[in-house]
Amino acid sequence: MSDFVLKVNCPDRAGLIYEISKIIFSLGLNIEKNSEFVNSEHKWFFFRAILSGNVDEIRLESDLKSILPSGGEVELIKRRKKDIVILVTKESHCLGDLLIRYFSNELHANILSIVSNHKDLSTLADKFEIPYHHVDAKDLSREEHEQKIIETIDNYSPDLIILAKYMRILTPLFVDHYKGQIINIHHSFLPAFIGANPYKQAYDRGVKIIGATAHFVNNDLDEGPIIDQDVVSVNHDFSWKDMKRAGQNIEKIVLSRAIDLALDDKIFVFKNKTVIF
Amino acid sequence: MSDFVLKVNCPDRAGLIYEISKIIFSLGLNIEKNSEFVNSEHKWFFFRAILSGNVDEIRLESDLKSILPSGGEVELIKRRKKDIVILVTKESHCLGDLLIRYFSNELHANILSIVSNHKDLSTLADKFEIPYHHVDAKDLSREEHEQKIIETIDNYSPDLIILAKYMRILTPLFVDHYKGQIINIHHSFLPAFIGANPYKQAYDRGVKIIGATAHFVNNDLDEGPIIDQDVVSVNHDFSWKDMKRAGQNIEKIVLSRAIDLALDDKIFVFKNKTVIF
Amino acid sequence: MSDFVLKVNCPDRAGLIYEISKIIFSLGLNIEKNSEFVNSEHKWFFFRAILSGNVDEIRLESDLKSILPSGGEVELIKRRKKDIVILVTKESHCLGDLLIRYFSNELHANILSIVSNHKDLSTLADKFEIPYHHVDAKDLSREEHEQKIIETIDNYSPDLIILAKYMRILTPLFVDHYKGQIINIHHSFLPAFIGANPYKQAYDRGVKIIGATAHFVNNDLDEGPIIDQDVVSVNHDFSWKDMKRAGQNIEKIVLSRAIDLALDDKIFVFKNKTVIF
Amino acid sequence: MSDFVLKVNCPDRAGLIYEISKIIFSLGLNIEKNSEFVNSEHKWFFFRAILSGNVDEIRLESDLKSILPSGGEVELIKRRKKDIVILVTKESHCLGDLLIRYFSNELHANILSIVSNHKDLSTLADKFEIPYHHVDAKDLSREEHEQKIIETIDNYSPDLIILAKYMRILTPLFVDHYKGQIINIHHSFLPAFIGANPYKQAYDRGVKIIGATAHFVNNDLDEGPIIDQDVVSVNHDFSWKDMKRAGQNIEKIVLSRAIDLALDDKIFVFKNKTVIF
Repeated sequence: MSDFVLKVNCPDRAGLIYEISKIIFSLGLNIEKNSEFVNSEHKWFFFRAILSGNVDEIRLESDLKSILPSGGEVELIKRRKKDIVILVTKESHCLGDLLIRYFSNELHANILSIVSNHKDLSTLADKFEIPYHHVDAKDLSREEHEQKIIETIDNYSPDLIILAKYMRILTPLFVDHYKGQIINIHHSFLPAFIGANPYKQAYDRGVKIIGATAHFVNNDLDEGPIIDQDVVSVNHDFSWKDMKRAGQNIEKIVLSRAIDLALDDKIFVFKNKTVIF
Repeated sequence: MSDFVLKVNCPDRAGLIYEISKIIFSLGLNIEKNSEFVNSEHKWFFFRAILSGNVDEIRLESDLKSILPSGGEVELIKRRKKDIVILVTKESHCLGDLLIRYFSNELHANILSIVSNHKDLSTLADKFEIPYHHVDAKDLSREEHEQKIIETIDNYSPDLIILAKYMRILTPLFVDHYKGQIINIHHSFLPAFIGANPYKQAYDRGVKIIGATAHFVNNDLDEGPIIDQDVVSVNHDFSWKDMKRAGQNIEKIVLSRAIDLALDDKIFVFKNKTVIF
Repeated sequence: MSDFVLKVNCPDRAGLIYEISKIIFSLGLNIEKNSEFVNSEHKWFFFRAILSGNVDEIRLESDLKSILPSGGEVELIKRRKKDIVILVTKESHCLGDLLIRYFSNELHANILSIVSNHKDLSTLADKFEIPYHHVDAKDLSREEHEQKIIETIDNYSPDLIILAKYMRILTPLFVDHYKGQIINIHHSFLPAFIGANPYKQAYDRGVKIIGATAHFVNNDLDEGPIIDQDVVSVNHDFSWKDMKRAGQNIEKIVLSRAIDLALDDKIFVFKNKTVIF
Repeated sequence: MSDFVLKVNCPDRAGLIYEISKIIFSLGLNIEKNSEFVNSEHKWFFFRAILSGNVDEIRLESDLKSILPSGGEVELIKRRKKDIVILVTKESHCLGDLLIRYFSNELHANILSIVSNHKDLSTLADKFEIPYHHVDAKDLSREEHEQKIIETIDNYSPDLIILAKYMRILTPLFVDHYKGQIINIHHSFLPAFIGANPYKQAYDRGVKIIGATAHFVNNDLDEGPIIDQDVVSVNHDFSWKDMKRAGQNIEKIVLSRAIDLALDDKIFVFKNKTVIF
């Protein structure tokens, strides 16, 4: 007997709450907490509940599917520590934040391994006894390198892949392989400053606020569903390196919060946007 | 046929969502939107829904009450523009913000009148053709003055009374007379700087952030249930008057947001705190 | 005898502070407050001081110019209420905020007139007895209409022109005519969502934060030097109209703060960015 | 030849900038950057400059002192990595953040040692090869324990002592011994929620925003000069443990920023407040 997260989304129609709660009730389960939202633009219904009791997974799923409108989806997820693999390049602030939270049991996940195109962060990984895989891109095509990264990741079968300042562009092949499983931290307030060195871009534009964006990765660079964003004020006295330093604090916190939301199964992705309970 | 807001709160137990939604469904009503929360500390259930359809108010209320645990409350509120009376003293920023929003139909309320212990803001009220009542406190005891204020307000039978920088302390008599109907804007980030001239207090303490708090008023000064708060950064270069000026922007916006939440019946008050959907 | 703001900017070199303060001191003037900044990328020096004493304007300017490196600029501005003209279209929140602040003497400016391509806000202007000029664009080319706007504005010889939600694109002719005098509020966090209906764009992108930007206007749409920016959090439950409503609070405050900075002569514009003391 | 930070504060009078810059100029030094502020309430002048050139420390200090009004102070600080000792109890988030920044050379300081009244964080210290001193309070009076802490710290002669969630109250003896050298992170938005378990206090009060405050420590608990503060929004759905978790992100960042300001000699303390350039 353990807790489950139930996620339902489907075209909206009258009576859904009643019918769903009736099934849950009739199977003798308790709703510890639930949230519901209707996207009125697309007439789409979202429901998430934490269930306790003796859950018969097959029965619950099939009962729910039988009453949902066509196009509906049911996910029933047993609550457990999820497995993650972290991809990094050279910057330590996001990885470090995750490792400290992992060390103190504040991250509700198992960090199975760290994968990088550079060696730099292996000493940091070693301190926390996390396997570190350096997959050198040297002399490899983008596809060959990515294939090696995929093989390395797949050995761990993670639930989530975290791009904690992984500074290489991913191909559609990679993204499709881990559809809906990849979370990236973008070092700007998307959709401003898409692409390389956003802090330099922000400095050149003379902005008074900089930000960071955590998002799921899809095929278009910096275009996936946004999970969380935050900002910090800057002024004319900030060089672009000062902006970068200020931005790194925001980056690590936004990434952390986004990962926590994903680990708790609080996020629905719908039409390139997120619904978050 | 029109929209209703249904608010239910009661001791929590299994099956409440199911039973409530069953009643709504059986009466042929649609849930346009609903929210639910359980306070786990006190095991208390909160539910708010927007209902459309041909609502039989008496039937719906009695059916709901029949299934709720003892101590439960049902409110069924027909959606309409609410009536408000605004109390002010001399400062114009909060009143002005409400009047501009009223003028442009962005405030979902009727401003029936403005009541003040000073004459200063009558010219502003006149511009918007709102009756302005100057109730002079001169030569009156606190109780006598308040009694005259109450008589003035009661002529209008408002749903809500807004203290938009009304700088007199209210007696328990006044507060009890309008139980749960009074919203105040406090010019500080409660519970810091309770009492008089919080900007001077904040300046003297050398804080780096100042804030404002909108709250329902109860008998203890500055102690009622908090609805909304916000802050703005300051630094050593701010005199306390600069802090006040910066704070006024926050005050008017926090008060505005709090009023909107109350006008939409989105707030539950429970044990000196708020649950806001 | 009255206060002056002295603004100096020039190529940086050693000893500037010493030489400038020596001249001020030798003319018997007091520096009530001063700020200084060097843009290290372009090696450019910025200095602003508030001077009191018996200021001989011609002497002070010529003495300062004599010691500044080639390319240097000196501005000596007598402190007074500046004159402004406000351009609007249909939305009242920014104009209303300025009028309320004007009414209560919190805006350190004279609002000489309001100019609009629509009639809608004339009743609001009338309440505050500000001349309102409706310059209808009907049957006019963009250039013809703009010429009439310019003629209307020029009758007032304002120091600053405030675009308080003026929803027409300005031609280079207009912008050049009022070089450095036009402040606009852009209803998004620039450079994100340039152009029309940024709230709809923000909604479609699924952002979690929306913002507003006040900037000087130059020839490129939405590309002028940024003065101030601020943001507010949103979530999946916000329609684009909800985003717009939340954004309007930010718009009016950001515009207000930017205008205050300009009225106090606190802003330097340098290479499409601002230095603000 | 190396960079110095010059800090001057004294009663304000006319001509100070001129006389100070004249001395600097006459000794052949360059001002790379300078800031100046006058506290108008107390008529007190603050000046900070970064100097380059061949600095004759004794001469510069004596020349400056000779022209300053009585009560003035001159500090001339050679720029170098400062030495710090960190005191902790059991929570790892602030210490971890400092260690990660130390590891990646983003912290401009040498962490000489970590001192704690508990053993818990020794494994984290070991990972980064920082000496960890467990000074058990068992069977010791407050004074005896503190004396052992002082002896341990004094072996390292640190410039700064960081209380990174050190959960014991310090006696005046300790505070006097390290006058102006101790920075604490307080887990609330001071002056709200002084004392123990502020997150529980904040939860009980039903606040909508929580914060953190970094401050210098003086004799009164939670009363020292504030260096930095920041906040994060919460709502009714946050338990006090959720608030604590959200607050920890703010705590670590506020402490980090405050330490950076102190390491760069950017802070003046004056009458229990800070002036920060």
